[in-house]
Amino acid sequence: MDIRQESLKKHKEWHGKIKIEPVARATNAEELSLAYTPGVAEPCLAIAENPELSYSLTRRWNTVAVITDGTAILGLGDIGGVAGMPVMEGKCLLFKEFADIDAIPLCVSTKDTDEFVATVRNISESFGGINLEDIAAPRCFEIERRLKEECNVPIFHDDQHGTAIIVAAALLNALRLTSKKLEEIKLVICGAGAAGTAIGRHIASLGCRNIIYVDRTGAIAHGDQFENPEHYLLAEESNPNCERGTIGDILKGADAVIGVSRPGLITSDMIRTMAKDPIVFSLANPTPEIMPDEAIAGGAAVVGTGRSDFPNQINNVLAFPGIFRGVLDSRASDVNDEMKKAATFALANLISDDELSQNYIIPSPFDKRVVSSIAKAVAKAARCSGVAK
Amino acid sequence: MDIRQESLKKHKEWHGKIKIEPVARATNAEELSLAYTPGVAEPCLAIAENPELSYSLTRRWNTVAVITDGTAILGLGDIGGVAGMPVMEGKCLLFKEFADIDAIPLCVSTKDTDEFVATVRNISESFGGINLEDIAAPRCFEIERRLKEECNVPIFHDDQHGTAIIVAAALLNALRLTSKKLEEIKLVICGAGAAGTAIGRHIASLGCRNIIYVDRTGAIAHGDQFENPEHYLLAEESNPNCERGTIGDILKGADAVIGVSRPGLITSDMIRTMAKDPIVFSLANPTPEIMPDEAIAGGAAVVGTGRSDFPNQINNVLAFPGIFRGVLDSRASDVNDEMKKAATFALANLISDDELSQNYIIPSPFDKRVVSSIAKAVAKAARCSGVAK
Repeated sequence: MDIRQESLKKHKEWHGKIKIEPVARATNAEELSLAYTPGVAEPCLAIAENPELSYSLTRRWNTVAVITDGTAILGLGDIGGVAGMPVMEGKCLLFKEFADIDAIPLCVSTKDTDEFVATVRNISESFGGINLEDIAAPRCFEIERRLKEECNVPIFHDDQHGTAIIVAAALLNALRLTSKKLEEIKLVICGAGAAGTAIGRHIASLGCRNIIYVDRTGAIAHGDQFENPEHYLLAEESNPNCERGTIGDILKGADAVIGVSRPGLITSDMIRTMAKDPIVFSLANPTPEIMPDEAIAGGAAVVGTGRSDFPNQINNVLAFPGIFRGVLDSRASDVNDEMKKAATFALANLISDDELSQNYIIPSPFDKRVVSSIAKAVAKAARCSGVAK
Repeated sequence: MDIRQESLKKHKEWHGKIKIEPVARATNAEELSLAYTPGVAEPCLAIAENPELSYSLTRRWNTVAVITDGTAILGLGDIGGVAGMPVMEGKCLLFKEFADIDAIPLCVSTKDTDEFVATVRNISESFGGINLEDIAAPRCFEIERRLKEECNVPIFHDDQHGTAIIVAAALLNALRLTSKKLEEIKLVICGAGAAGTAIGRHIASLGCRNIIYVDRTGAIAHGDQFENPEHYLLAEESNPNCERGTIGDILKGADAVIGVSRPGLITSDMIRTMAKDPIVFSLANPTPEIMPDEAIAGGAAVVGTGRSDFPNQINNVLAFPGIFRGVLDSRASDVNDEMKKAATFALANLISDDELSQNYIIPSPFDKRVVSSIAKAVAKAARCSGVAK
């Protein structure tokens, strides 16, 4: 049976992928009076006096909301929040299974940015952190920016930053393998949506100086006109030599390409025009921009995809559980650049020089060290950068 | 140790009274591909085509949100949503323990009615039902009314209707015991906030014709001026003989009084002026309007309180678990008057004529028949009244 049909069948059986379980009990009058009235008045008053106590007297310390507006569910597009809930619930399952975090799936039924921001802000204090999920670009940028300003809890748009952290870790290891320096490479990012933009910005923050974004209309360059307002910012931040042209033009001489766009956009012939030992991350899912065998035929030294049936899977599950574990453990008020960098290095460094190979540049999500290593690094970076005590 | 101090200690140990548990698993690549990507695309598409399937392919069928704005937490008043979370979490625990419902605690940090309504409406489709909790009167009336209009999921303000259902069931049994008819009694409600208003309206819907609300300023009567806009409606609906005066004045000749106000408002002497075999429900918590021994000294035939250390505890836990179990089981789109009436009769009728006594007019919340009887009655009434298939 096809995996998607099998999944549908399983979803019918599961009837929901997570559930609530009691920690306290309420099976007799005494338990009821302690967990509920009249006893519960005392923890309420304690929190009223010192709101910080909400992290010790309620489940808040371990609770994350997974929130979508349904505008960019998987590769399916704007199918609405309710239809996106199997993904949100799945993500909550992964939060529990990988990092023992209690995550709550929520869909917000408005596409008005102001109203979305107000809604999430108004419920934000119910949680220790908020994971934004599957929100379309460019609205995801404004939404995340404003929620970070307006909320007292850490906000993290996983499709942007989680992906960026994993791709950057994989890139660092691929560069280690091919003996190239991040500061010296030419990097092409094919696709300038939420993921592409965040990947490029994160890799730039790590020291890469020559990043060129290529969108449907070609390379994004200073002085061009754009439909997406975020692209005016990108044009300033990237493409220092103001290169112009199609993906084929821009790949010439590039050391690495990261595809987060559409199937079939990259060919073997294009890979052949890249610099020596090119790195090819072809992340469109389920069908990549170029299949691994074609990339290797074109001379690629390292190939990564989003798929579990090829080596070097850039799997989203590698980042968010450890990041939120670190955020919650340190009571961080934000997820800042220092924390994202720390997560990237922690993930990359799980693979030693001896282990590193063409087919092993990124750990498996089932490697038990992943979550704890990222969590520890993120918590430390939060403290060092002043967003946690 | 005092129960409230003991509760505080327990809350520190529990570190949250509920948690998430996995139903599906994600411990290897195959499980991951079924519960999350790429398999999950299929249930998403199925729900996009038919949103009703969100009730079978996600946890929605069994999920309730417990939502407060923190304006009327227990008897503590407006201490804020975060400080109210121990109550919300406790309520979610009770939902699980009594009715196996997955309830999620949420606090909304706005006191603007429009914004509160928009916030709850925007997240409402994440759930199978919404339980509003500890929202101050009179704003709770407008909030519930508007949410019922604007949402596609059933909305229920438990402090109003849950309490009303239980009090009405206890009153029906007290009348059975004292051989009085609901249609013929004079009923005084002492306190005209959220609970008092809902109790009176519900008992009126059951057939009581002479209900008089007494507030701080005295009996609510046609033609008076009121601070609370809801009281203009109450004045029209109630007090058919336009009686005026203090609680002492109004209790003269009354068959029953229901106190939902402040400690010590009612005296033995006042009870002595009531009709034969008076019924006294003195529900202010933890200190009642009149203590049971004083009420009995004044001649009360039946006394109920909100406390577990006296007979006839009007315990909030008696209603909401069964009501929401019935609502979710029948996929009801609303909680209407017919369903509330059915819940009231189901609860009252659990006590047979033989069992009924001065000290046993309402079942224990730990009586295993309570939730299932109410659930069955509510589901049936939902179908008969056309809000469920």
